[in-house]
Amino acid sequence: MYFRSIFFEDYLLEEKRITLGRTITETDFVVHAGHTGDFFPHHMDEEWCKTQPFKHRIAHGTMVFSIGIGLTASEINPEAFSKGYDRLRFVKPVFIGDTIHSEVTISEKAEAKKPEYGTVTEHVEIKNQHGEVVLVCDHLLLVKKK
Amino acid sequence: MYFRSIFFEDYLLEEKRITLGRTITETDFVVHAGHTGDFFPHHMDEEWCKTQPFKHRIAHGTMVFSIGIGLTASEINPEAFSKGYDRLRFVKPVFIGDTIHSEVTISEKAEAKKPEYGTVTEHVEIKNQHGEVVLVCDHLLLVKKK
Amino acid sequence: MYFRSIFFEDYLLEEKRITLGRTITETDFVVHAGHTGDFFPHHMDEEWCKTQPFKHRIAHGTMVFSIGIGLTASEINPEAFSKGYDRLRFVKPVFIGDTIHSEVTISEKAEAKKPEYGTVTEHVEIKNQHGEVVLVCDHLLLVKKK
Amino acid sequence: MYFRSIFFEDYLLEEKRITLGRTITETDFVVHAGHTGDFFPHHMDEEWCKTQPFKHRIAHGTMVFSIGIGLTASEINPEAFSKGYDRLRFVKPVFIGDTIHSEVTISEKAEAKKPEYGTVTEHVEIKNQHGEVVLVCDHLLLVKKK
Amino acid sequence: MYFRSIFFEDYLLEEKRITLGRTITETDFVVHAGHTGDFFPHHMDEEWCKTQPFKHRIAHGTMVFSIGIGLTASEINPEAFSKGYDRLRFVKPVFIGDTIHSEVTISEKAEAKKPEYGTVTEHVEIKNQHGEVVLVCDHLLLVKKK
Amino acid sequence: MYFRSIFFEDYLLEEKRITLGRTITETDFVVHAGHTGDFFPHHMDEEWCKTQPFKHRIAHGTMVFSIGIGLTASEINPEAFSKGYDRLRFVKPVFIGDTIHSEVTISEKAEAKKPEYGTVTEHVEIKNQHGEVVLVCDHLLLVKKK
Repeated sequence: MYFRSIFFEDYLLEEKRITLGRTITETDFVVHAGHTGDFFPHHMDEEWCKTQPFKHRIAHGTMVFSIGIGLTASEINPEAFSKGYDRLRFVKPVFIGDTIHSEVTISEKAEAKKPEYGTVTEHVEIKNQHGEVVLVCDHLLLVKKK
Repeated sequence: MYFRSIFFEDYLLEEKRITLGRTITETDFVVHAGHTGDFFPHHMDEEWCKTQPFKHRIAHGTMVFSIGIGLTASEINPEAFSKGYDRLRFVKPVFIGDTIHSEVTISEKAEAKKPEYGTVTEHVEIKNQHGEVVLVCDHLLLVKKK
Repeated sequence: MYFRSIFFEDYLLEEKRITLGRTITETDFVVHAGHTGDFFPHHMDEEWCKTQPFKHRIAHGTMVFSIGIGLTASEINPEAFSKGYDRLRFVKPVFIGDTIHSEVTISEKAEAKKPEYGTVTEHVEIKNQHGEVVLVCDHLLLVKKK
Repeated sequence: MYFRSIFFEDYLLEEKRITLGRTITETDFVVHAGHTGDFFPHHMDEEWCKTQPFKHRIAHGTMVFSIGIGLTASEINPEAFSKGYDRLRFVKPVFIGDTIHSEVTISEKAEAKKPEYGTVTEHVEIKNQHGEVVLVCDHLLLVKKK
Repeated sequence: MYFRSIFFEDYLLEEKRITLGRTITETDFVVHAGHTGDFFPHHMDEEWCKTQPFKHRIAHGTMVFSIGIGLTASEINPEAFSKGYDRLRFVKPVFIGDTIHSEVTISEKAEAKKPEYGTVTEHVEIKNQHGEVVLVCDHLLLVKKK
Repeated sequence: MYFRSIFFEDYLLEEKRITLGRTITETDFVVHAGHTGDFFPHHMDEEWCKTQPFKHRIAHGTMVFSIGIGLTASEINPEAFSKGYDRLRFVKPVFIGDTIHSEVTISEKAEAKKPEYGTVTEHVEIKNQHGEVVLVCDHLLLVKKK
């Protein structure tokens, strides 16, 4: 983890970075439930899940998002501010024992309201060990111009 | 926490529910950093934060989102599936000691691709103890028709 | 989680509510040991447990109690105060992977010392996925009269 | 933590042991809520607590019990089995920053159903830094005779 | 856990104590990564580990050290101060499910700079369930003389 | 976090890297106690600490070591193996609210037993917000030659 200044002009469309992977554990399920207060049986009750189409406990959507985004947090760009996310979609369930990683592609650059800033969109795909996309979203950054 | 079936027809536009509150603690900061691996100094280094405009550690955006959404998780609707979120925006920083709650308003109803389902949009506002909105997003639900 | 006023007169003998279930995980064992400081080998040392009649790590009694009671915490009655518990008994061991839920029955109503209050006893049974009772106790509530 | 065999005959009425102390932290509140799923505002919402007679977040009863009992877990007696607890009472609230310890007195000895066992009652008082009792209970042990 | 004064003269060379055991769980891996920020794939990515000689996730060295030393923390000697550690070596990997314990031998006694103190060296061996040493180190204590 | 091959020949004596900082919180104290089982009053009992020369709870040595080393874990060198640590010394206490960072200097290079490897020593200094060294140690790496 370190600081590196990247200005609006430096972001290149289609540039892509791929994070390391992380195995999602039962511990993560329990920690996320306790952290958020969401103890829905989908995530916490193996017996009930057996009666459902997905058969096993499935990860909280907010957890897959938080951990998948967390995996991208290695370089701190002091010129950029996170505005938020668009088009966040839960594409496939994540089960205990799955290993996820994130792939981030610069998908859009645009002018921002303030002329000294631009908007950069990072398209994020979180994938499992089978290469399947489990979650997608667009991360919106406000980035200083040089 | 309990099951209650609510069908597409039952959702009423403008209907609003307000959750209980929860004080965001230093513990939540540390747990979220450890849960996601995001140890950026914005969240973890009080000395560095003193040199920044915001002066104090600020909550991870993914944490405010996860806890704010977690606060809404009290009733399980077996007729609804979460598709994802749109227009998630970080509006104001959340500091250690702030108390947040969530306000959920049914903001849109539409037909879904499959005719036996409809799409319901819940507009979520997460607010602090001063009544200020700190995060907004639109939660998209796919809901069975009767 | 929400507030709902229930007065002494509103409690009905034999009324029963059943909570959702929760799978007890190895994580819960480790969290409870770390939370309480009780690292007895019965809960933490799988090798030693192999030499014992119960063969596998068994849950802390205080954990089964705390989680089982936690499962009942969905509705907040501002007219009631928890006085404590009677006849708490550890009936059967809980193992990693067991799924427990709680069944709460109003078993007794009585006058309290202060005439504007009554005492309500909730008999709590915590059961595993085989329907076996693993822990019982009587929860004593002091409840305002109308 | 170590094993030491103590038989029924060895327990002496009125014998007392006093544990070390432990400061109850905001972290413990957050961990216990996440561990049990009990996010009642009494424990988690400092703003709401300001409007209540107790003014500040108060510890979960199950947490004071679990930690207070955990403090007594230093010596493992392989001749004793915990049957449960009687007369558990929440006497005074515990606040963030309070320091508690436990005092255990052998208060009763009796025959058990099986003639090769006896029942020993440990009266447990959990006290705060002012010497005030915050929780009491009677721990029931089934102990082998020599 | 209790206080017991042991002076420099009381330490006997070759005296040995053996702690209870503790099974190292996946939870411990996740907790340690979150506690330290070390999310290296050796500890967190089961898929990547399959491609490595050790085949499975291996425990953080700092965790085996911290837990192994923690196991020795039962008796508090108010006459002794921990100066640090020498010759800490990671001898064998620890995997999820291994059970470790610690063996502490008084291996050296020497004069300290201040004449009223002596230096005591505890040689610590942390072993797994097969009796194999996984970590060794020498703990240096500064101990008051009588 | 990413992989970068650095061979024995590439390590330069006196080369130094400085990590970001991290504020040590009460949460870290509670997590470390729960993770290791070390609930000594030096770390956990604020009231007892008031009677001691250091006046406030002080961090576990193993925690300062684990977090300080964790701060250095950003780049994964697949050519290097950690052998262990020498001369680990606890120089000054760390209190709740202190902010630490680590400074790593290549202090020694030597031949290893196997001719295709060399030994690299990283001298690690963990410092607080006042620039004071709180812990030092020498990290021993076995590194492949080109």
